[in-house]
Parts: sequence; C-alpha cells; structure tokens
Amino acid sequence: MTELAIIAAISIFTAGLTVAIGSIGPALGEGRAAAAAIAAIAQQPDAAPTLSRTLFVSLAMIESTAIYCFVVAMIIIFANPFWDAMQAAAGV
Amino acid sequence: MTELAIIAAISIFTAGLTVAIGSIGPALGEGRAAAAAIAAIAQQPDAAPTLSRTLFVSLAMIESTAIYCFVVAMIIIFANPFWDAMQAAAGV
Amino acid sequence: MTELAIIAAISIFTAGLTVAIGSIGPALGEGRAAAAAIAAIAQQPDAAPTLSRTLFVSLAMIESTAIYCFVVAMIIIFANPFWDAMQAAAGV
Amino acid sequence: MTELAIIAAISIFTAGLTVAIGSIGPALGEGRAAAAAIAAIAQQPDAAPTLSRTLFVSLAMIESTAIYCFVVAMIIIFANPFWDAMQAAAGV
Amino acid sequence: MTELAIIAAISIFTAGLTVAIGSIGPALGEGRAAAAAIAAIAQQPDAAPTLSRTLFVSLAMIESTAIYCFVVAMIIIFANPFWDAMQAAAGV
Amino acid sequence: MTELAIIAAISIFTAGLTVAIGSIGPALGEGRAAAAAIAAIAQQPDAAPTLSRTLFVSLAMIESTAIYCFVVAMIIIFANPFWDAMQAAAGV
Amino acid sequence: MTELAIIAAISIFTAGLTVAIGSIGPALGEGRAAAAAIAAIAQQPDAAPTLSRTLFVSLAMIESTAIYCFVVAMIIIFANPFWDAMQAAAGV
Amino acid sequence: MTELAIIAAISIFTAGLTVAIGSIGPALGEGRAAAAAIAAIAQQPDAAPTLSRTLFVSLAMIESTAIYCFVVAMIIIFANPFWDAMQAAAGV
Amino acid sequence: MTELAIIAAISIFTAGLTVAIGSIGPALGEGRAAAAAIAAIAQQPDAAPTLSRTLFVSLAMIESTAIYCFVVAMIIIFANPFWDAMQAAAGV
Amino acid sequence: MTELAIIAAISIFTAGLTVAIGSIGPALGEGRAAAAAIAAIAQQPDAAPTLSRTLFVSLAMIESTAIYCFVVAMIIIFANPFWDAMQAAAGV
Amino acid sequence: MTELAIIAAISIFTAGLTVAIGSIGPALGEGRAAAAAIAAIAQQPDAAPTLSRTLFVSLAMIESTAIYCFVVAMIIIFANPFWDAMQAAAGV
Amino acid sequence: MTELAIIAAISIFTAGLTVAIGSIGPALGEGRAAAAAIAAIAQQPDAAPTLSRTLFVSLAMIESTAIYCFVVAMIIIFANPFWDAMQAAAGV
Amino acid sequence: MTELAIIAAISIFTAGLTVAIGSIGPALGEGRAAAAAIAAIAQQPDAAPTLSRTLFVSLAMIESTAIYCFVVAMIIIFANPFWDAMQAAAGV
Amino acid sequence: MTELAIIAAISIFTAGLTVAIGSIGPALGEGRAAAAAIAAIAQQPDAAPTLSRTLFVSLAMIESTAIYCFVVAMIIIFANPFWDAMQAAAGV
Repeated sequence: MTELAIIAAISIFTAGLTVAIGSIGPALGEGRAAAAAIAAIAQQPDAAPTLSRTLFVSLAMIESTAIYCFVVAMIIIFANPFWDAMQAAAGV
Repeated sequence: MTELAIIAAISIFTAGLTVAIGSIGPALGEGRAAAAAIAAIAQQPDAAPTLSRTLFVSLAMIESTAIYCFVVAMIIIFANPFWDAMQAAAGV
Repeated sequence: MTELAIIAAISIFTAGLTVAIGSIGPALGEGRAAAAAIAAIAQQPDAAPTLSRTLFVSLAMIESTAIYCFVVAMIIIFANPFWDAMQAAAGV
Repeated sequence: MTELAIIAAISIFTAGLTVAIGSIGPALGEGRAAAAAIAAIAQQPDAAPTLSRTLFVSLAMIESTAIYCFVVAMIIIFANPFWDAMQAAAGV
Repeated sequence: MTELAIIAAISIFTAGLTVAIGSIGPALGEGRAAAAAIAAIAQQPDAAPTLSRTLFVSLAMIESTAIYCFVVAMIIIFANPFWDAMQAAAGV
Repeated sequence: MTELAIIAAISIFTAGLTVAIGSIGPALGEGRAAAAAIAAIAQQPDAAPTLSRTLFVSLAMIESTAIYCFVVAMIIIFANPFWDAMQAAAGV
Repeated sequence: MTELAIIAAISIFTAGLTVAIGSIGPALGEGRAAAAAIAAIAQQPDAAPTLSRTLFVSLAMIESTAIYCFVVAMIIIFANPFWDAMQAAAGV
Repeated sequence: MTELAIIAAISIFTAGLTVAIGSIGPALGEGRAAAAAIAAIAQQPDAAPTLSRTLFVSLAMIESTAIYCFVVAMIIIFANPFWDAMQAAAGV
Repeated sequence: MTELAIIAAISIFTAGLTVAIGSIGPALGEGRAAAAAIAAIAQQPDAAPTLSRTLFVSLAMIESTAIYCFVVAMIIIFANPFWDAMQAAAGV
Repeated sequence: MTELAIIAAISIFTAGLTVAIGSIGPALGEGRAAAAAIAAIAQQPDAAPTLSRTLFVSLAMIESTAIYCFVVAMIIIFANPFWDAMQAAAGV
Repeated sequence: MTELAIIAAISIFTAGLTVAIGSIGPALGEGRAAAAAIAAIAQQPDAAPTLSRTLFVSLAMIESTAIYCFVVAMIIIFANPFWDAMQAAAGV
Repeated sequence: MTELAIIAAISIFTAGLTVAIGSIGPALGEGRAAAAAIAAIAQQPDAAPTLSRTLFVSLAMIESTAIYCFVVAMIIIFANPFWDAMQAAAGV
Repeated sequence: MTELAIIAAISIFTAGLTVAIGSIGPALGEGRAAAAAIAAIAQQPDAAPTLSRTLFVSLAMIESTAIYCFVVAMIIIFANPFWDAMQAAAGV
Repeated sequence: MTELAIIAAISIFTAGLTVAIGSIGPALGEGRAAAAAIAAIAQQPDAAPTLSRTLFVSLAMIESTAIYCFVVAMIIIFANPFWDAMQAAAGV
C-alpha cells in the first residue's frame, strides 16, 4: 500500500503547487491590463464601453491560463486516473 | 500507520504553501490595479463611478486566482479525498 | 510516537513559513496602493474622501490574501485535523 | 508494481508543473499586449477595429504556447503512451 | 527524548525565519508609502494633516502583516501547543 | 524492467518541462512585439498593413522557438528512439 | 547530550540568520524613505520640520520590523525556553 | 545494460532542456528587435524597406543561437555518438 | 568532543554569514540616501546643514541594522552562551 | 565500462547545457544592438550604411561568444580527448 | 584530529565567503553615491567642497559595513577562539 | 582508473560551463556598448570615426573577459596539467 | 592525510570563489561611477580635474573591497595558517 | 592517490568557475562605462581626448577585477601550492 501513499502524497502536493504557481502570472497580467484600462478610461471617458469590452475579453483570455491550472488541480484531486488505476490494482 | 503520517505531513505543508505562494501574485496585481484607479480618480474625478466599477470587477477577477488557492488549501485540509481513502484503508 | 513528532514539526514549520511568505505580496501591494493614494491626495486634495474610500476598499481586498495565510496558519497551529486524528489514533 | 507507481507519480507531478509554469509567460505576455491595446484605443478610438483585430490575433498566438502546455499535460494524464506500455507490460 | 529535540529545533528555526522573512515585505512597502507621503507633503504642504492620517492608516495596515509574523513567532516560542503536547506525552 | 521505467519517467518529466519552460520566452517576446505593433498602429494608422505584416513575420519567427520545444516534446513522447531501442532490447 | 548540541547549533545559526535577513528589508526601506525626505527638504525647505517629523515616525515604524528580528535573535540566544527545558531535562 | 539506460535518460533530459532554455534568450531578443522595428516603421514609414531588411538580418542572426540549440538537441536524439558507441560495446 | 566541534563550526560559519548578508541591505540603503543627499545639496546648496543633519540621522538609523548583525556576530564569536555551556558540560 | 558511461553522460549533458546557457547572453545582446540600430536608422536614414556596418561588426563580435559555446559543445560531442583516452584505455 | 580539520575547513570557507559577499553591497552602494556626487559636482561646481565632504563621510559609512566583514574574516583566520580552544583541547 | 574518469568528467563539465557562463556577461556588455555606439552615430554622424574607434577598443576590452574563459576552457580540454599528471601516475 | 586533502580542496575552492564573487560588486560599482564621471565631463568639461579627482578617489574606495577579496584569497593560497598547522600536526 | 584526484578535480572546477563568474561583473561594468563614453563623445566631440583617457583608466580599473580572477585561475592550474605539497607527500 506504500504505492498508494506515494501517489496520494504527490497528488496533494502537485494540486496545491499548481494553483499556487498558476496564480502568479495571471494575477500580474490581469493587474497590468486592468491598470491600463483604468488609466485609459480616465484619459478618454467617452471610449469607456469599448475599453471595458476589450478589457473583459483580455481578462477572460488571461484568466484562461489560471483556469487551466485550476482544472488540472481538480482533475488531480477528484478524477485522478492514476489513483483510480492504482486503487483498482491494489484491490481496494 | 506511517503512510497516514506522510499524507498528513504533505497535506499540512501543501496547504500552507499554497495560500502563501498564492498570495504573492494577486496582492501585487491588485496593488497595481488599485494604484492605477486611485491615480485615475485624482486625474478625472468625474469618472469616479465608472472607474470604481471597473476597479471592482478587475479586483474580483484577480482575487479569483487567490480564491482558487484558498479553496484548494481548504479542500486539502478539510475534504481531502486521499486522506479519507487512506484512513478507510487503514481501518481507522 | 515518531509520527506525531513529524506532524508537529511540519505544522510548526509550515505555520511560520505561511505567514512569512504570505506577508511579502500584500505588504508590497498595499505599499504601492498607499503610495498612489497619497500622491493622488496631494495632487487633488478635493477628491480626498473618494480617494480614501477607494484606498480602504483596495487595502481590505489586498489584506484579504494575507488574512487567508494567517487563517491557514492558525488552523494549522490550533485546529489541525490531521494532528487531532493522529493523536486519536495514538490513543493520547 | 513499483514501476507503475513511479510513472504515475512523475506523470501527476509533471502535468501540474507543466500547466503551472506554462501559465506564467503567456499570462504576462497577454497582459502586456492587452494593456498596450487598451492604451492605444484610448489614444486613437477611431482605429479600434484594427487594434482589436491585431490584439486578438496576437492573443491567440501567445495563448498557443499556453495551449501547448495544456495539451501536453492532458496527454500526460489521459493518453500517456509510457503508462499504457507499462501497464501492458505489467499485465494489468 | 529525541522527538522533543526535533520539535525544539524546528520551533527555534521557524521562529527566527518567520520574523526575518516577514520583515522584508512590510519594510519595503512602508518605505514606499513613507517616501510617497514625504514627497506629497513637500509638494502640497497644506494637505499635510490629511496626508499624515492616510499615511498612518496605511502604515498600520502594512505593519499588520509584519505583526502576524511576530505573533506567530511568539506563539511558536512561548505558547507552542505541539511542544506542550509532546512534553505532556513524554511525561516531563 | 526498471530501466524502461526510468526512461519513461524521464521522458514524461522532460516533455512537460520542455514545453513549460519553452513557453516563457516566446510568450513574453510575442507580448512585447504585439504591444509595440498595437502602439504603432494607434500612432500611425496609415501604416497598418506594413506594421501587421512585419508583426506577423516577427511572431512567426519568435513562435518558431516555441515550436522547436513542442516538436522535441512530441518526439520524446511519441517517437522516442531511446524508448524504442530499450523496448527492443527488453524484448517487449 | 547530542540533543543539547543540536539545539545549540540551530539556535546559533538561527540567531545570526534572523538579524542578517532581517536587516535587508528595513535598510532598503529606510534608505528609500530617507532619500525621499532629503529630496523633499531640498525642494521645499520651509516644510523641513513637518518632513523631518514624518520621516522619523516612518523610520521608527520601519525600524520596528528590524527590531522584531533583533528581539527574537536575543531571545533565542539569551532566553531560549527550549534550551532551558532541554538543559533541565538533561539534568545539567 | 544499466549504462545504456543512463545514457538514454541523460540524452532525453538534455535534449529537452537544451531547446527549452535555448528558447528564452532568442525569443526575448527577437521580441525586442521586432518591437523596435515596428516602432521605427511607424515613426518613419518611408524607411520601411531598409528597416525590414535590417530586422530580418538581425532576426536571422539571433535565431542562429536558437538553431544551435535545436541542432545539438537533434544530434543528441538522432545521431548521438556516445549512444552508438555504447550500443556497439554492449553488442546490441 | 564532537559536539564542541559542531558548535564551533556552526558559530564560525554563522558569524561570517551574518555580517556578510547583513552588509548588503545597509550598504545599498545608505548608498541611496547618500546619493539623494548629494543631489539635494547640489540642487539647494543653502539647505546643506539641514540636509546633512537629516542624512546623518538617517545613516545612523540604517547603520543600526548593520550593527545589530555585527553585535550578534561578535556575541557568537566571543560571548557565545551555548559554547560556554557546552564547554562546562564537557569539563573543559 | 561504467567509467565510459559516466564520461558519455557528462559529455551529453554538458554539450546541451553549454549551447543552451550560451544562447541567452548573445541573443539578448544582439537583440539590444539590433533594436538600437533599427531605431537609429529610422531616426537618421542617411546614415544607414554606416549604421549597418557598425551593427554587423557588433553582431559578429557578440555572436563570437555564442560560437565559442557551439565550438566547445561540438568538441565535446565529436572530438572529446577524454572520451578517446578512456576508450583507448578500455581497449575498445 | 578530524575535528580540527572540520574547524579549519569551515574557517577557511567562511573567511572567503564573508569578504566575497560582503563586497557586493558596499561596492554597489559606493558606486551609487560616487555617481551622484560626480553628477552633482558637474551640475554645481561651486558646491564641490561641500559635496566632496558629504561624499567622503558617506563612503566611510558605507565602507564600514565592508570593514565589518573584513574584520570578521581576519578574526576567523588569525584570532579564531574556537580554533584555539580546539587546539588546546587536542593538546597540540 | 576511476580517478581518471572523475578528472575527465569534471574537466568536460567545467569546460562547457566556463564558456557558457562566460558568454553571458560579455555578450550583454557588448550589446550595450554597441547599442550606445549606434545611437551615437545616428545622433552625431560626423564623429563616426572617433565613435567606431572607441567602440572597437571597448569591445576588445570586454571580449577579453570572454577570451579568458575560452582560453581556460581550451587549457582544461587540451592541455590539462592535472590530467597529464594523473595519466602519468596511472602509467597510461 | 585525508584531512590535509580536505583543507587543500576547501582552500582552492574558496580562493577561487572569493575573487570571483568579489569581482561582481566592485566591477558594477566602478562601471557606474565611471559612467557618471564620463557623462559629467561631457556636460561640464571645465570641471574635468575636480571630476577626475573625485572619480579616482571613489574608484580606489570601491576597488578596496575587491582588494580585500584578493588579499584573503592570497592568504588562503600562500599563507594559510590552518594549512600550516595541519601540516605541522601531520609531521610533514 | 584518491586525494590527488580530489585536489585535481576541485582545482579544475574552481579554475573554470572563477574566470566564468569573474567575467560577468567586469563585462557588464565595462559595457556601461563604454556606453557612457560613446554617448558622451557624440554629445561633446571636442572633449574626446579627455573622455577617452578617463574611459581607458576606468576600463583598466574595472578590468583589474577580472584579471584578479584570471591570475587566481592560472595559479590554481599551473602553480597550485596545495597540489605540489600533495604530490610531494604522495612521493610522486
């Protein structure tokens, strides 16, 4: 059963690390885009709708990389094929 | 029972590390967006409502990556499927 | 009883590391937001109430990521489910 | 069966790490491109359609590197040829 | 008694590391906020009271993350529940 | 058969790491080029066709380094000569 | 007596590391605040008293994080509860 | 045959790492050159042919360092003299 | 006597590392403050006395963190309580 | 024959690492020089021949450091004196 | 006598590392201060004596942190109390 | 003969690492100098001969540090006194 | 005699590392001071003697930290008290 | 004879590392000084002789730190006192 423990330990550690590291880039990138949008609206209030739309599309695009990480972490915790195979092999 | 100890130790360490690393990016990104919003309001006080709204939407978007980390940490501490499976296997 | 010692050691180390690393991002982010707010008030003293309000909302948002870390550290020290389970298993 | 455990552990760890590291560059790059586009639209609202089109093509190009990472992570989790060969060899 | 030594060693090391790492972010953030406040007072001496008040609230907010670290370090040194449990278990 | 496991483990880890690290540089470089192109189009809308063409050639050139990484990762996963030689030697 | 040696070695190492790392942030932060104050006095000599007062309050605030580190280092060297407990246990 | 496995493992790992690390510098350098060229064309559209020519020569020069890495990775995977010598020595 | 050697080795290493790392922050911080003071005197020669006074107070404040490190290093070399206790215990 | 394997493994790893690390500096340096040249030609089209000549001489000079790395990597792979001596000693 | 060797090895390594790391901060700090002084003299030649005096006091202050390192390194090499105690204990 | 293998392995690894690390600094430094020269020629075409001469002297000076690395790498590969002594001692 | 070898190995490694790391800070600091001096002379040619004098004093001050490193490295190679004591103890 | 091998391996590795790391700082510092000189000559062609003289003195000063590294590397390779002593002791 030691093998199951290794798989479980690695899965827990990887799931946490994935969302943790995966939050750095998107958070900084979204911060930058949001800062630019806010400065742009202050400079050109008339173009606010266009700017907001561009901002939200960009945020969604950037957020997608964070969501990849979240999805992979969820798969690793709740739908981990290696864990299932191992448990089946161990007859649990 | 050594396996349970390994799972527990990894879970504790990962939960702490996840929220710790996961706070760096969002905090910096939100700081940048907030700084931009404050500077923009000072420059264009009339657009304050639009700017605030854009800021809050952006902060919520950025905060979401920190919340992913918090959620994963909470799952690891309080609803850890690997821990449950291990305890069940150990007959505890 | 060696397992209890490992859990205790990891818990202490993780609790300290979590608040330590978790203070870097929020402190820098809040410093940036505060600096922007102070510069903005100096530039546009009439908008001070709006700026202060925006600043405090932003600081609260940024501080939240530090509080996640503090909460997780407190849970790890004072309400650690793995520690309780281990102590129960050890019959202590 | 220890070999299967090693393969599984490495696969889980690599899948998580790949999307995590692979989110840093694209997120920052897209943040930069989006910030530039937003600033440009504010400066030249008439050119918004051209700017948006250029932005979306660029975002797609940058996102492609994140998608390479996501694809490789998915292959590693769900269509891993080494895992299949190992399982076949182990007669599972 | 080796377990008590491990707990003690980890506690000492963690307490020191926590306040040490926990001083970097707040010190830099406070330095930035203070520099902005001083520059702002020089630029707009009439707004000094408002600026000072904003500065002190911000410094208190930033200092709070350093205080979390100090509190956790003090708990680890003087009110460590794991140490108490271990000593009780060792019959000391 | 332990050798096959080592080869498989290294192959999986390397494939993931290659596309992950290989996405950082191109994503940042493309983000920079795209930001410059967008700013340039806003500044000189008449030159948009020339600018777009130059941008796309540059993006293709930069993307090529990411594609080298993707190609090498695919070779390592699906057409790995060392894996084939090892399997042949192991009589699998 | 090996345990006492481990505690002593960790205590010495941690005490030194704590003040060493704990001097980086405050020194840089104070340098930044002092530079701002000096530039501000040169720009607005009439406001020197207000600026000096703000500077000294800020320096005291920043220095406090360095003092936390120094206090913890002193506690670890001269009033280490773990060392005392260990020596009592060892009958020294 | 353990030796062959070591050679194969190192070859796979090195091939991936080489193109991965080797993509960072060229991608950033090409991004910088392309950004400069695009900004220059927007500023001086008449000089576009000269600028494009200079850009393409520079891109080729920078790409050459990435190609060195790709060539070495291909040699390591498909024409590795050490692997051949080892296989000959092992009588495979 | 091996324990005494470990304590001595750690003490020597820590003393050196403490002053070495402890010199980075203060030196950079003082360099920044001094540069600001020199630029300020060149810009406003009449305020030289006030500027010098502010500079010296700031330098003293920053130097204090370096002095903490030097004091701790000296305590570790010449007044190390752990070394004394260990020597007393060893009957030297 | 284990010695030959060690030499081969180190040679492969070093050859890849050498060209990989050796591509970072030159690529960034050439990117900077090329960017400066392109900006300069846009600013002073009449001096294009002189600027191109200076650029190409500089690029050649910078490329030389990358070529040193490529040459050393090629020597390590195809004309490695240590490998030859080892093979001769092993009677291969 | 192995203990003496450990003490000697650690002493040599620490002495070198201390002056090496201890030269980075002061050298950069002094470079910054000197650059500011030179720029200031060029801008305000009449204030050269005041500027030189301020520069030399600052350089002496910054150099002091490098001298701490040099002093500690010299103590470790030529007046190391732990080495003396160890040699006395070893009866050399 | 294991000793010869160690010497050979270290020599190969060091030779590669030396030219690889040794190419970073010079390439960046030369890139900076070349960029400055190109910008200067564009700004002051009449001074091109003086500028070119200064550039080439500087490039030669900077290149010298890369050449030190290349020379040491060549000595290590082709005229390694330790290798010769070892081979003589081994009677090869 | 193994002890002598350890001392010798550590001495060689430390001597090289000391001058290597000890060259980074001073070289960058001197480069900065020299760049400032050259720019200052170009801006204010009449003050060249004063500027040169200030530059040379500053360079000497900065160089002193590099010389500390060189002196310590020379002491470690040619006048190493630990090596002498060890050789005397070994009766060589 | 294993001791000689250790000394030889450390010597080779240290010599390469010393010139490699020792080339980073000087190359960057010289690049900065040269860039400043070239920009200064373009701005003030009449002061070219003074500027060249200052540049060459500065380059020589900066190069000196690289030469320290080269000298130490040459001493380690060709006049290594520890190697000589070891060989004498080994009766070679």
